[in-house]
Amino acid sequence: MSSAMNVDVEDHYFSSNPPPKALAHHEALARDFINQHAAANRRVVLITSGGTTVPLERNTVRFIDNFSAGTRGATSAEYFLESGYAVIFLHRQFSLQPYSRHYSHATGCFLDFLQEDATGTGVVAADDHADELLAVLRKYRAARTRNTLLAIPFVTITDYLHELRAIARLMRPLGPRGLLYLAAAVSDFFVPPDRMPEHKIQSTDATDFLQKQKEEEEAEEEETFDNFDSSPTVPRSKRLVIDLDPVPKFLKNLVDGWAPNQFIVSFKLETDPNILVHKARYSLERYQHHLVVGNLLTTRKWEVVFVSPGRSDRWLRVPSPAWKQVDPEAEAHKPLDPSDLPDGEPAVEIESLIIPAIERLHEEHIKSHQARVDGARS
Amino acid sequence: MSSAMNVDVEDHYFSSNPPPKALAHHEALARDFINQHAAANRRVVLITSGGTTVPLERNTVRFIDNFSAGTRGATSAEYFLESGYAVIFLHRQFSLQPYSRHYSHATGCFLDFLQEDATGTGVVAADDHADELLAVLRKYRAARTRNTLLAIPFVTITDYLHELRAIARLMRPLGPRGLLYLAAAVSDFFVPPDRMPEHKIQSTDATDFLQKQKEEEEAEEEETFDNFDSSPTVPRSKRLVIDLDPVPKFLKNLVDGWAPNQFIVSFKLETDPNILVHKARYSLERYQHHLVVGNLLTTRKWEVVFVSPGRSDRWLRVPSPAWKQVDPEAEAHKPLDPSDLPDGEPAVEIESLIIPAIERLHEEHIKSHQARVDGARS
Repeated sequence: MSSAMNVDVEDHYFSSNPPPKALAHHEALARDFINQHAAANRRVVLITSGGTTVPLERNTVRFIDNFSAGTRGATSAEYFLESGYAVIFLHRQFSLQPYSRHYSHATGCFLDFLQEDATGTGVVAADDHADELLAVLRKYRAARTRNTLLAIPFVTITDYLHELRAIARLMRPLGPRGLLYLAAAVSDFFVPPDRMPEHKIQSTDATDFLQKQKEEEEAEEEETFDNFDSSPTVPRSKRLVIDLDPVPKFLKNLVDGWAPNQFIVSFKLETDPNILVHKARYSLERYQHHLVVGNLLTTRKWEVVFVSPGRSDRWLRVPSPAWKQVDPEAEAHKPLDPSDLPDGEPAVEIESLIIPAIERLHEEHIKSHQARVDGARS
Repeated sequence: MSSAMNVDVEDHYFSSNPPPKALAHHEALARDFINQHAAANRRVVLITSGGTTVPLERNTVRFIDNFSAGTRGATSAEYFLESGYAVIFLHRQFSLQPYSRHYSHATGCFLDFLQEDATGTGVVAADDHADELLAVLRKYRAARTRNTLLAIPFVTITDYLHELRAIARLMRPLGPRGLLYLAAAVSDFFVPPDRMPEHKIQSTDATDFLQKQKEEEEAEEEETFDNFDSSPTVPRSKRLVIDLDPVPKFLKNLVDGWAPNQFIVSFKLETDPNILVHKARYSLERYQHHLVVGNLLTTRKWEVVFVSPGRSDRWLRVPSPAWKQVDPEAEAHKPLDPSDLPDGEPAVEIESLIIPAIERLHEEHIKSHQARVDGARS
């Protein structure tokens, strides 16, 4: 099942898709951060969060995106910090962030949580929210003061892969104490740079108008964004066809080359309950890493399934009176039916179950690695 | 040039692409809001802001998006409020909003603008930011108190079009005092519902594995997401081809049917300076509305061009010592070269020039409409 990637494919991808401008700066930040926590013998987790974009033009107006507000990653970061990890939060720009997530995507806006003070000369927390905001602010300030949270943004799939490779490599000295928690929604397909048009793709109505002026440029675009006719109802000239290549599967490179010995957790998000566990198990067998957390789009805040080598599938489900008849520890169970979900949000964030469970697996991983090292020495 | 759309095309689009669940609720909110301000003889602007998404699956994991943080729309909303308009802010969910925009997409997070108070029992604005935050909060609270700002979110292109049609129709009683300011980045192409697969599109590696279980479903997907081979380097089975239809051009329906007599401003964003003005002029001639604001992706915070019927193109440019030699009022000028832009953000928000200029055009529109009505009566 293993599918080690030809090193040439890796080299070709990274040389033909240039890194983000800030990469060197981000590497310097990550290096200092990792060194500090390695010296303190603290475990470090790299959390990836949010969706990656696939630009369709060089001067990007349009792009393909993956659904993700970054809730899973931002929430998980808080629980990892509570468990004593140092957190590198590699996130999609403007997606949810730990702590501010409680306010930034609120129905209104975070200004609703503030008010003028009694004297009319300053700003204070609004009365209804003062205690909660103070508690959140303290946790955020603690992470800043202790320098246990490093946030690094990305936008495109290429940015993401460059950052991931660079940071995973920097984490190598951590050995088994490093944890990779790959919660980002990563594109499977992309437009290679040699097939990407320079400018915004034109809808044909306008290009008709400009055709005389722009025949040459159009010819170029046609090559990539080929229009063809498979429907009798829409004229040939007005459709858009986007032709995407698969993104090379770098998880195996991560496991074998970039972050050997580290504990690696990936996520599998599906919408079809019938294929979730199969796909999670397939991913685990293919990449030979440590844990796949499977989840369904509709029920992802209510339950996830842990798929790990040599173990039965294990479902984690938030408690709810709605399913008190079900044994949450039962190893074999059927995924929740979305129509059975209670209204609103779960009373408990499922990440408060996920992170302690991962922490235990990570501890086992550290111990067994240590035992192997000791065995080899004796 | 005019291209009135067959009413059947409109009906077919809106009946085959169902409205967002919240539409009726949003209509009720907009109706009350418009009635209140119509009674006060206040001008009302509908601002559209942010990008629309094009879902690629019914249970949406992947979608096509248009680049837009919503900066233009959110910033413009503040200046319209300052000019005495009531503002309906139809925006992409989680895009920038008026007032909170100053903090929500900050490099850090808005919690950086807050601190514990001296007694450690409450939250106050951080010392460095207290004055600015107070000023912003006051303006925000004033808009809330006077009920001059109504925010309505959308996500998909279909949500957007349903909301736009509904709100424009509700604004009809405002006549020429209604203004439509269409700053949203709206998709030109979409996947019609009858061609949209139910579940997340599978990358072929995994579907190979599941092929025996899923042959039927795959056959269905193949029909829509047809894989074909135009490159010798990537195997036929691993590519993704997305086939999109054009979104019907509803701007003409807006001008003629949904919002007759209102003042309608559209935006044209391009990346190629050689086609910007032509495309803006073409759009104006095609839809017969009142103003196209043209802008280039790289220079959009520094200059825009007003293209309106019977007038020469008029460029608005923020002042900067970098181009003190150029007469900003010169009617014919070349677009700024992006490499000539000063570093950082402009000292002045260009919306502080755009909105007063539009307000003057809107006033002329109201007067000339009144003159026509008076003329018909006498």
